[in-house]
Amino acid sequence: MSAEPRESHHPSSTQGSRIDPYIDSYAARTQGMVASEVRALFAVASRPEVVSLAGGMPNVDALPLENIGELVRQVATEQGSEALQYGSAQGNEALREQICDVMSLEGITASPDDVMVTVGSQQALDLITRVFVDPGDVVLCEAPTYLTAVNTFAAFQADVHHVAMDEEGVVPEALEESLANLTAAGRRVKFFYTIPNFQNPAGVTLSAQRRDRVVEICQRYGLLVLEDNPYGLLRYEGELTTALRAQAPESVIYLGSFSKTLSPGFRIGWVLAPSAVRAKLVLAAESAMLSHSTFNQMVVARYLTNHPWREQIKDFVEMYRDRRDTMISALDTLMPEGTTWTRPQGGFFVWLTLPEGLDSKAMLPRAVNERVAYVPGTGFFANDDGHRNMRLSFCYPTPDRIREGVRRLSGVIQSEISLRDTFGSTSAPTTGDQAGPTPELP
Amino acid sequence: MSAEPRESHHPSSTQGSRIDPYIDSYAARTQGMVASEVRALFAVASRPEVVSLAGGMPNVDALPLENIGELVRQVATEQGSEALQYGSAQGNEALREQICDVMSLEGITASPDDVMVTVGSQQALDLITRVFVDPGDVVLCEAPTYLTAVNTFAAFQADVHHVAMDEEGVVPEALEESLANLTAAGRRVKFFYTIPNFQNPAGVTLSAQRRDRVVEICQRYGLLVLEDNPYGLLRYEGELTTALRAQAPESVIYLGSFSKTLSPGFRIGWVLAPSAVRAKLVLAAESAMLSHSTFNQMVVARYLTNHPWREQIKDFVEMYRDRRDTMISALDTLMPEGTTWTRPQGGFFVWLTLPEGLDSKAMLPRAVNERVAYVPGTGFFANDDGHRNMRLSFCYPTPDRIREGVRRLSGVIQSEISLRDTFGSTSAPTTGDQAGPTPELP
Repeated sequence: MSAEPRESHHPSSTQGSRIDPYIDSYAARTQGMVASEVRALFAVASRPEVVSLAGGMPNVDALPLENIGELVRQVATEQGSEALQYGSAQGNEALREQICDVMSLEGITASPDDVMVTVGSQQALDLITRVFVDPGDVVLCEAPTYLTAVNTFAAFQADVHHVAMDEEGVVPEALEESLANLTAAGRRVKFFYTIPNFQNPAGVTLSAQRRDRVVEICQRYGLLVLEDNPYGLLRYEGELTTALRAQAPESVIYLGSFSKTLSPGFRIGWVLAPSAVRAKLVLAAESAMLSHSTFNQMVVARYLTNHPWREQIKDFVEMYRDRRDTMISALDTLMPEGTTWTRPQGGFFVWLTLPEGLDSKAMLPRAVNERVAYVPGTGFFANDDGHRNMRLSFCYPTPDRIREGVRRLSGVIQSEISLRDTFGSTSAPTTGDQAGPTPELP
Repeated sequence: MSAEPRESHHPSSTQGSRIDPYIDSYAARTQGMVASEVRALFAVASRPEVVSLAGGMPNVDALPLENIGELVRQVATEQGSEALQYGSAQGNEALREQICDVMSLEGITASPDDVMVTVGSQQALDLITRVFVDPGDVVLCEAPTYLTAVNTFAAFQADVHHVAMDEEGVVPEALEESLANLTAAGRRVKFFYTIPNFQNPAGVTLSAQRRDRVVEICQRYGLLVLEDNPYGLLRYEGELTTALRAQAPESVIYLGSFSKTLSPGFRIGWVLAPSAVRAKLVLAAESAMLSHSTFNQMVVARYLTNHPWREQIKDFVEMYRDRRDTMISALDTLMPEGTTWTRPQGGFFVWLTLPEGLDSKAMLPRAVNERVAYVPGTGFFANDDGHRNMRLSFCYPTPDRIREGVRRLSGVIQSEISLRDTFGSTSAPTTGDQAGPTPELP
C-alpha cells in the first residue's frame, strides 16, 4: 500500500505541496529567522566573470597544503583512537591550553578551564545568546555590525540596538547614553557586542583611550562585553592591541577563531568566559551538538605544536597587506568625488560611503551587471540604515582582480551620479521591506 | 593600572569570585540546562580498572586507520582549496547525494535538496527544537528515551511527556491516548520523538505492524514524527526495517548519522525534512554555526566514494554481534533471579530491570566500588521513573571485559538483594532531587 491514501489524513495535504502544512507549528522565534533578499543575486555574483568584493573568505590557497595533508594523516593514523571518537563538550584540553598561548599575544592571561572550543565564533555567539537572551531583552551592537551576529540575536528574539561608531570605533558617549536611556526605560540589556579590531564591516579599530572608557562604562552598568576578535592577529601596521578581556577578565566574554589565521574549513573557534558563564555555555554546547569534532581539534592542536604558526600568520599578513594597499590605492585613484572609505590597519574590510542620493542596495543589480559585487550597507544594520554604504573585501581576490573590481565599481558609481544628477535620488521607493539582514557570505 | 580598581565598579565583585555576578542575567531557558549529578561518579568510572558498560562509544579502533589517514591527506592536498574554506549551511552537495543513497537502504526515496548536514544528530535535534518549540509546548518521547534529546527539549523549555513502550516499541494505544488527552486539554504538541530501531536505551525495535499504526495516529493528529535512526544499519539478525520516513515523507523528519557506521570524530549527521521545514532548519543552522566543517564533509564524501563502506558496516556488525551475544549470554548465565533484560537485534544497548526493591541509582556508587559502571535508568526519563532500570552498553568493551563486567554487576545485584532482604528497599530516601537527566556519555 502506498503512502498516498494516508496523506489524506493530513490536515493540509489536500492543498498541495506548495502550502507548508506546518506553518502554524513553528516557534515564535522563527519570525526572527529570515532569508536574505539579495541571496539570489549573490548566486549570480559567484560567476567567475564577476569580481566579488563581497565575501569575507580567507585566502586558504596560501596555506601549505602538502604539510597540512601530512598533518591530518598523522592525526588519523597515530591518534585515531582518540581523534575519531567522541570528545567532551568543552573541547580538547591540549588545544585549550594552546588557545591560551595564542590569546597571550594580545595581553590575555587565562586558564584553559575557562575556554570552550566552538564551531567557529558563530557557535559561540549562538550559545551565549541562548544562555543570556530572553525574548525582548536588549543587545547592544556597533553601527554597523557583523550581520550574522545580528541574525543570531534576532533568532532568540533579542531587541538589537545600535551604538554609533566613528573612525576610532564605538563612541563611548553614545554607548553611555544608550545604556542610561535603556536603564531608565526599565529595559534588560544583556550585553554589548563589539568587534574592536578591524571591525566587520567598518574596518575601524577601537582606539586605546576608548578601550578604557568602554570597559568602565559597561562595568558601571554591570553589563557584559562580548569581544569578538577574529582578525586581531592580522594587523598590517602598528602594534597588536591589548584585548578588552585583558583589562577586565570578569566583565568580558572573548571570542576567538582559527578561521582567519589557519582555515575556516575545520570550524575551530573558541570562547573565553568568566567561570560561571563558561559552565553554562558547556551545558548549552552539550545540548547543541554533544561535542565538536575531536579530529579537527587535534588537527589544530598538532598544527600549533608542529608547525611555525606565527610564521604562517606573518605570511598571511604580508599577503593581505598587499591586497589592502591595492584596494586603498585603487580607491584613491579611481573613486569619484563625494565617495569616502575607511582605511583599515588590518582585517579584511573597507567600508565605503557613496555620494549623497545614491543607494547601494538599489545599485547592486547594476553593479553585478557590470561584473562587480559588494555587500550593501543595509545588511549590517538591524534597522533601515546603511543605504549609502557598502562593504568591500580585499581578502580573497588577487590584487589584479581587486584593481579591476574597484575600476568597475567606480564606473557604476559614476553612472549612478549621472542618473542622480538627471533624476534625483537613485534609491528605490520604500516598499515596507520584510527581509532581514544579508547573511554573511562565506 | 591594573584591572583591580575597576573591579570594584562591578555590582557583585565585592562578594568574591565564588558568587556568580551574572546570576540574574541568564535567560529563563537556562533553568532547563542542568548538570548531571552522576557526572562526578563517571569521572571515577573512567579509570581503567573499572569495566564501563555505561558509555555509548563506538569501537573506532576497528577502523582501518592507515586508509583513513591516506583519505584525509588526499582531501587536504587535492581538494584543499574547497575543503579548507567556508561552505554552505545546508552542507556539501555531493555528500547530500550520497546520504540519499545510504538512506535508500532503509526504503527512503529523497532529494538531496531536502537533506541538511549537521554536527551529529544532536545538532539536528537542537535545530528542530529551536524551529518548533515555544516554551510550554509538549514534546512526546518514548519511555525511556535518549537522555540528551530530553536535555535539548528541556533547554528550549518544552514539556516532555513520555509514552509507554514494550518489547515491540512504543505502544500505539498509549500514543493515541496521550494525544487525545493533550489535545482535549488544549496543549500544543509539536512532535513525537522516536528511535524506532534498537532504541537507546531500551534496545527494542518498533515492530512492522506498529509502524503503520504510529504513522497513522500521528498523521491523524497533524503531528510530526521525529525519527532518530543512528543504529538502523547495525542490525545483527533479520532484515533491515523500512524507515517511518519511507511510509510518510511529509509527516516525518528523519535523523541519520555517520557516528556509528564510520566515526563520531567527524561529527557528521544529517536531517531529512519536508522542504518547508528544511528551509527553516537551514536558516537556523546558519545562525547556529554559519556552516559545518567542509573538510569533514568532504572526508566522509570521499570515504563513501572510494572505500567499501558497506563492507565496513558488515565488519562492524560482526564485531558488535559478537559483543551483544557475549553480553546476553553472560546475563543469562550470571544474573540473579528477578532480574530481566531486553534482547536487542542491533545497536549498542541492553535495558535491564532490577528485582523489586532495588534502586539502580542508589546502587551505582557500590557498583563503581566493585569496578563496574552503567547508566542508571533515571537518566532516561524526564520524570522520576527508571529507578529499577539501567542501561548496559556492549559496543565499546571487548567480549572478555563485557563478561567480567556482567560478573561484577551480578555480584553487586546479589549483595543488594541480600541487603533488601535484611533491610527492605535499597532506594535512597527521596530528596526532592533537582538534578536533571544524566547527559549522554561519549
